[in-house]
Amino acid sequence: MEILQVLHMNNGEGETSYAKNSNIQRKIISVTNSRLEEAILNIMCNNKKVPESIGVADLGCSSGPNALMVVTEIIDIIDATCRKSGSSFPELRISLNDLPGNDFNEIFRSLPAFFQKIKEEKGSESCYVAGVPGSFYGRLFPLKSLHFVHSSSSLHWLSRVPLGLGINARTALNKGKLYISKTSPSEVINAYVSQFQKDFSSFLRSRSPEIIPGGRMLLSLMGRSSIDPTIEDGCYYQWELLAHALSTLVSKGLVDEEKIDSFNAPYYAPCPEELKITVEKEGSFMINHIDAFEIEWDANISSNSPAQCEDKKILLSRGQQVAKTIRAVVESMVESHFGNEIMDDLFSVYSDLVDDYVYKKRAIYVNLVVSLTRKD
Amino acid sequence: MEILQVLHMNNGEGETSYAKNSNIQRKIISVTNSRLEEAILNIMCNNKKVPESIGVADLGCSSGPNALMVVTEIIDIIDATCRKSGSSFPELRISLNDLPGNDFNEIFRSLPAFFQKIKEEKGSESCYVAGVPGSFYGRLFPLKSLHFVHSSSSLHWLSRVPLGLGINARTALNKGKLYISKTSPSEVINAYVSQFQKDFSSFLRSRSPEIIPGGRMLLSLMGRSSIDPTIEDGCYYQWELLAHALSTLVSKGLVDEEKIDSFNAPYYAPCPEELKITVEKEGSFMINHIDAFEIEWDANISSNSPAQCEDKKILLSRGQQVAKTIRAVVESMVESHFGNEIMDDLFSVYSDLVDDYVYKKRAIYVNLVVSLTRKD
Repeated sequence: MEILQVLHMNNGEGETSYAKNSNIQRKIISVTNSRLEEAILNIMCNNKKVPESIGVADLGCSSGPNALMVVTEIIDIIDATCRKSGSSFPELRISLNDLPGNDFNEIFRSLPAFFQKIKEEKGSESCYVAGVPGSFYGRLFPLKSLHFVHSSSSLHWLSRVPLGLGINARTALNKGKLYISKTSPSEVINAYVSQFQKDFSSFLRSRSPEIIPGGRMLLSLMGRSSIDPTIEDGCYYQWELLAHALSTLVSKGLVDEEKIDSFNAPYYAPCPEELKITVEKEGSFMINHIDAFEIEWDANISSNSPAQCEDKKILLSRGQQVAKTIRAVVESMVESHFGNEIMDDLFSVYSDLVDDYVYKKRAIYVNLVVSLTRKD
Repeated sequence: MEILQVLHMNNGEGETSYAKNSNIQRKIISVTNSRLEEAILNIMCNNKKVPESIGVADLGCSSGPNALMVVTEIIDIIDATCRKSGSSFPELRISLNDLPGNDFNEIFRSLPAFFQKIKEEKGSESCYVAGVPGSFYGRLFPLKSLHFVHSSSSLHWLSRVPLGLGINARTALNKGKLYISKTSPSEVINAYVSQFQKDFSSFLRSRSPEIIPGGRMLLSLMGRSSIDPTIEDGCYYQWELLAHALSTLVSKGLVDEEKIDSFNAPYYAPCPEELKITVEKEGSFMINHIDAFEIEWDANISSNSPAQCEDKKILLSRGQQVAKTIRAVVESMVESHFGNEIMDDLFSVYSDLVDDYVYKKRAIYVNLVVSLTRKD
């Protein structure tokens, strides 16, 4: 499976689109606001005077209502700082990155209104936005062109399925599962751990020449609270329930059992220690903070987007809400392996399993936020 | 009519798509190759040694097979020059621009293969491509970020329908016509001339701060051979025949006559003198050359793309070929005014009219190529 080709959030604006089902990711962005402000202020006040031109990149920007959310936040912070210090608004070079399958057209069509708003509210016309498609595990930007790099809800996606766990593996090592599970043998866990280390290290090595000395990165990704990769808050239960849902479809004759055995998600939820070790080993960046915080699986979706319920004229269960969020994110990938025809069934069974789970247990994600400075 | 919203080449890869019907534009790009080479060589050898980083923008890149054609050509020229002089391939910052309605997703999906090819053929990994949506009649790029700007088959599109000729005009000044015609009153001609001067001047003023001193522009656009704007080679007969086709639909009761009266194309084919005067008046650029060359309406389409005929298992007439080319370009705009339901009829009648015309007359476009240098 070529991740570059099949991983993208669900396009368009339909019922199963990412645009309509990205409240969790929005919530994650909003809780990192204080760290974002800290980083931007540092860049602006580092050299006593505000830089004339600031390069900013949002990696894994996706599309939909969240795509310009961080950028808007950054502009607000810069504007407030300029007003306080009496300096003029700097030239702002904004790069929006995601994989080539992302719906950039949707973002681009929203830009004229976005520019109009900046012009009216900030009086600034020197804000330039570019779309940069490609994998952030490789180089994306020219030498020393960036002051600040942001990435939210993206770095838990690996560049590939770990070695030995892909569709062409001779032995199915992770039978009946889609990700690290309590039943997974140590080879599976090791393959995941080493793929993450390799990928995160490539990420840092690629950003290192692109960011100016003293420049900052703020990375927010799914993680876990413990060194044990089978701990439930590592989002592992979401994959576990999806595997469970697929088994149900096997028993109904809708899915071949071997299909499950040959699929492993290109996903990894690290613990803070793993991030720390990889950053230190790569050597270009200094860690300012690593924060971990918990988010409920349904993150108050119902209170955040009543429209979703009104549209359907019914109240969605927590399981249905969670299933919609997960579907918008993983469908492109799951579909390319299992086929389009079982998607509705799969996420319907999944939503029942989630309802059952959240009734019995506290269902949370752990989100890690890492703030880094490019060393001189 | 908001040009920013409705003007885009036909998206996708279907029978009426721009991707499948852009041989004329490809031909135009290919005949400007010697001027392109001249400009790039000048940039590379201007400072004795090759610049470490080169910024290039293609304005109005569209999508389909032509979108990366000029960029590929530029990379070939740079690579050949580096090999000759023994210098290493510079960092190349490429910006692809078009209006926000352009199909950037299609270009972006072709980039992984494009990068792979550059890596294999040139051994270069320092080529960065970004999509920059927006109107080139305003600022698009940061200060002094570009060495070379290219634009092909785009600058004949005005930023708007000329004042007094839009859908809300109180009097229909250009009855039964879509563009300057032999029957157009002088108000119509003046409105077109002044809109072009205003737009082309905005274009130059916007590029002026973006291009480094000594940087180059190569602009290729539809034009005409004479000062008289009603001369047939000014592409005016294409609009004349489209107006004629629409009148035919009026007589069949498919189109309201008033609909034609209230539509005027946001298009202008200038003569070399007009370009010269506007460049001199704006003042930032020096003209190196203005070339004019003629292209047959069907530009050997049949010999260039036999696949087109094979697909349909029929041989297309010259009129049908021309109609397909024109449809791919103007449909988004014509459709937004006249409605989708008459498009097939319109271009069918149009193709008959073109067949009739090319049987009697020599049917040519005039293409102007302007080479400019940013003054110090």
